[in-house]
Amino acid sequence: MFAEILTVGDELLTGNTVDSNSTFIAQRLTERGYWVRRKTTVGDDVEEIKTVIREILDRKPEVLVISGGLGPTHDDVTMLAVAEALGKRLVLCEECLEKIRTFYERLHREGYIDDPELNEGRRKMAYLPKGAEPLENTEGAAPGAYIEHDGVKIFVLPGMPREMKAMLENEVLPRLGRRKFIQRKLLAEITDESKLAPLLIETLERFNVRIHSSPKGFGKYIGIIIFGENEEEIERAKAFMEGKGVRFEEGW
Amino acid sequence: MFAEILTVGDELLTGNTVDSNSTFIAQRLTERGYWVRRKTTVGDDVEEIKTVIREILDRKPEVLVISGGLGPTHDDVTMLAVAEALGKRLVLCEECLEKIRTFYERLHREGYIDDPELNEGRRKMAYLPKGAEPLENTEGAAPGAYIEHDGVKIFVLPGMPREMKAMLENEVLPRLGRRKFIQRKLLAEITDESKLAPLLIETLERFNVRIHSSPKGFGKYIGIIIFGENEEEIERAKAFMEGKGVRFEEGW
Repeated sequence: MFAEILTVGDELLTGNTVDSNSTFIAQRLTERGYWVRRKTTVGDDVEEIKTVIREILDRKPEVLVISGGLGPTHDDVTMLAVAEALGKRLVLCEECLEKIRTFYERLHREGYIDDPELNEGRRKMAYLPKGAEPLENTEGAAPGAYIEHDGVKIFVLPGMPREMKAMLENEVLPRLGRRKFIQRKLLAEITDESKLAPLLIETLERFNVRIHSSPKGFGKYIGIIIFGENEEEIERAKAFMEGKGVRFEEGW
Repeated sequence: MFAEILTVGDELLTGNTVDSNSTFIAQRLTERGYWVRRKTTVGDDVEEIKTVIREILDRKPEVLVISGGLGPTHDDVTMLAVAEALGKRLVLCEECLEKIRTFYERLHREGYIDDPELNEGRRKMAYLPKGAEPLENTEGAAPGAYIEHDGVKIFVLPGMPREMKAMLENEVLPRLGRRKFIQRKLLAEITDESKLAPLLIETLERFNVRIHSSPKGFGKYIGIIIFGENEEEIERAKAFMEGKGVRFEEGW
């Protein structure tokens, strides 16, 4: 089960914003048992987004999560690019338009904006690729979209972290089935990461787990993450390594 | 002048580490006048890294910065993947091996490691693609590499942020010429981002600047970044927008 993540936004390519969205999405997909094979970031450009979506679809992931570029401004072009990449038209989602209207009316009532009118930019957000299922945005104006295309589950989410996270939890994850992998972060006390390598490989062969290691400076500790389908298997893998002389501490 | 960034590491794809490295690299490249067109992240897998490097080279950027996977462990395979992608062999860099030896001897003297011996994992770091120029790592063991290939300047840097940053500043940027773009971050007081769009487009047509806008919640402010070759041009663009009724505050 492999997945890809595409984040969209000029601010990510100029270094003005750290792409923590893709980190959050990757974490949630990993927990569900998906292997996130690649993350890509492109700017707010229809042609670029379209090109990279087509490349991703050619690699046939089971899931593609796209985040960013759904807002009301001229450079929010992700939905258009998704539609073009799939050879579909953008069509008005009446139900979405109603929600957008209600959303701006509320902002106006609460004094956040001067004008509740549905101008062109705001209306634009109600257009989704033909055949897409709208995903509810509980935290903002722009709806997301869910499209099954050629065996790939495509989710298009906003870029504002609060909106993206809510939509991922409420609308995306329930469509991906139950939680599958859990992970355990450990610090391995060992003075040379390279000595750990053969032991890790042996552990991987014996147990149904995935293991990542990463150096934590040049001190006595190496960060280890064990992924497994249940706590017991992780515990067995850990005990095996302890039997070979590795000392662990919890967390990092 | 366009550039791409490739970050390598399983921890980036499981959501255990935020990829702040690519943000830092993007920021520095943008300042130098490069347009970072795409960022990609793949795991510690020779085939994946090789594939994505070839795809990037096909797009003919002027600069490709790769970060991550240069360490001593079994899953540090970036240098091998770079070599394979370019059709080159890995060859021993004697000068690098000497520095690695000195580095571990120092760590041993200072009590950080038990064994200063150059085992296989540590020796591995001294192998670079044939023809590559080593890049000095002032903060760690693994050298980086600089390779000109088919018109693309390829820089291979470590993944530990402290090492990557030092190498980027000391070894990469001096090879990319003088600082070119500066940026100014402003908050535009306007209650609807969509109303700003036509004004931004007019400003872009009149002045030699690039502008990014991004919503800051649904309050009265929209984040604006103006990029220009000098302060004066940025100031002129700002004054033009102020003349059209936008109120700015500095920074965000």
